[in-house]
Amino acid sequence: MPSQPNEWRQHIQQFIDRKTKPPGSLGRLEELALQIALLQESLRPNLAQPRLWVFAADHGVATQGVSAYPQDVTWQMVNNFLAGGAAINAFARQHGLPLQVVDVGVKHNFAPHPNLVQAKVRFGSGDFTQMPAMTALECQQAMEVGRQLVAAACSQGSKAVLLGEMGIGNTTAASALMARLLDLPAAACVGAGTGLDAPGQARKLAVVEKALQLHDRLQTPLEILAALGGLEIAAMAGAMLEAGRCRALIVVDGFIAGSAFLAAWRMMPELAACAVFSHCSAERGHRAMLERLGVTPILDLGLRLGEGTGAALAWPILEAATRFLREMASFDDAGVSESP
Amino acid sequence: MPSQPNEWRQHIQQFIDRKTKPPGSLGRLEELALQIALLQESLRPNLAQPRLWVFAADHGVATQGVSAYPQDVTWQMVNNFLAGGAAINAFARQHGLPLQVVDVGVKHNFAPHPNLVQAKVRFGSGDFTQMPAMTALECQQAMEVGRQLVAAACSQGSKAVLLGEMGIGNTTAASALMARLLDLPAAACVGAGTGLDAPGQARKLAVVEKALQLHDRLQTPLEILAALGGLEIAAMAGAMLEAGRCRALIVVDGFIAGSAFLAAWRMMPELAACAVFSHCSAERGHRAMLERLGVTPILDLGLRLGEGTGAALAWPILEAATRFLREMASFDDAGVSESP
Repeated sequence: MPSQPNEWRQHIQQFIDRKTKPPGSLGRLEELALQIALLQESLRPNLAQPRLWVFAADHGVATQGVSAYPQDVTWQMVNNFLAGGAAINAFARQHGLPLQVVDVGVKHNFAPHPNLVQAKVRFGSGDFTQMPAMTALECQQAMEVGRQLVAAACSQGSKAVLLGEMGIGNTTAASALMARLLDLPAAACVGAGTGLDAPGQARKLAVVEKALQLHDRLQTPLEILAALGGLEIAAMAGAMLEAGRCRALIVVDGFIAGSAFLAAWRMMPELAACAVFSHCSAERGHRAMLERLGVTPILDLGLRLGEGTGAALAWPILEAATRFLREMASFDDAGVSESP
Repeated sequence: MPSQPNEWRQHIQQFIDRKTKPPGSLGRLEELALQIALLQESLRPNLAQPRLWVFAADHGVATQGVSAYPQDVTWQMVNNFLAGGAAINAFARQHGLPLQVVDVGVKHNFAPHPNLVQAKVRFGSGDFTQMPAMTALECQQAMEVGRQLVAAACSQGSKAVLLGEMGIGNTTAASALMARLLDLPAAACVGAGTGLDAPGQARKLAVVEKALQLHDRLQTPLEILAALGGLEIAAMAGAMLEAGRCRALIVVDGFIAGSAFLAAWRMMPELAACAVFSHCSAERGHRAMLERLGVTPILDLGLRLGEGTGAALAWPILEAATRFLREMASFDDAGVSESP
């Protein structure tokens, strides 16, 4: 077995190229297979015991009219997740992905439910046009929620985590984080979210610009995440950092999960090796975010729902990438002639 | 229940828009759901009992040095499919897709195997730079092989067929068909296939141009398919036509299956309503083919393997599109507030 990363890379690439197919003919699947094999340091990686969490929280900035939907939709959708009626439930059932909903900060008291993790840090974040969304301590508490869930899952053998979210107003927070963390103009980062019209988008842009101005002295990724993020975004960032420590595959969902990744990546640059980006969202800003990260999304289906739906839809492609490595015959095994 | 197609379309669209998600937020999945619901005239369509066939045949034109691989790879890969060691086997197992390999014209005698359909029309097609690849009768016989398999499957309840192929030299036939059926220059239709270098591609282009010249008087799609196609391409075209008659969903794989679709579509234009295009291949010409058809592929992963691998990889997306229709709650069901 090779001992150096570069030797491993060559070793895995040769293993891929010995499979009964023209070299490179599985395209992106070969790149994903290489990434996952490198992550697990195995020629036969597996994505055993995947876990899917939807982190939910409310946003103080929702009072500024930045969403097409009322804030109550956050808790109503949490109940919909728990009842099994949302899109993510359908896709999670399809792929046998166990789903837990994590309340890190919804403005609502929920009855206990077997699929609900009650880990509320506070009843919604603060309005970041007036104050930091969270204190640094609250941000760390929310990150700790995600961290502990992933740590427990990995200790039980999980090799992949899929992270989604729910929170009315959270594309506004994600846009602010993206603008600040990638040093981009707010206009490049603000989009329609769940379906804002043009005046609504103009209002949202003004809100993000005001927030960026108010918090422009902050420097560390933790400070920025606390001021401009949200409790569910912080929880996802914490989950990602722990997955990176455990070398579990992180399946990043869309624009909002992407903003959590930006913060986590600034804290731990080597996280890039552990992450795959499930899709390019129709939300304006996401394509630029992916380009700045230098990553290629797996799917491009015009999705803009969140909830982890993109991650769940990309899941079978990731499984396929590990399956062909494990299951395909080589030219020698199968007695197939090679290109002269 | 509506009686007119336009009423059905509105009825289904309203049903989609009542689901607990912002309108349009599932992007392409909503378009696919609409297409499949229209096809099945049902608000709760299903893709029960899918069938996957890999049609295999040899090509006389392979003797012109148009492939990076020797012709023996066709029968060797058929044996690999039967042994379960090819990429399509891994993906078919992953998604529970029953796979049959259909010999419509491989230059090899196979031992009987439970997953092999022996329906050889002849031992490889003729070299279409010298003669028609098939006679019209042979072409119809090959089409009949595909037609009968689909007819039997549909009579047993299959709602979807996935069609793939194997045949050294068959991107050359597909390029010739594409050029002729879409009236495009050969250069826009000829690519690297399994991995030709630049001189190889120039040779392949000359071969296609010679064939187009030799057969330039042919007019009907059957004549063109017989002269420039291949036995596995004809079988796929026959399978597609029967699926169209049965209103089963046709999951078209890549470039070669696409060329079979071009021929079948010319014979039955309403086939477009029954077909989805699993991916955009890395093979040059495929993107232009899809654009000329006015269709959007589901995946864009740089695949160029054939065997039905793209169709199998897109399968879970199609299942997801029907699942959200069947399983998601409406705003009313779930008590979720709507956009004001």
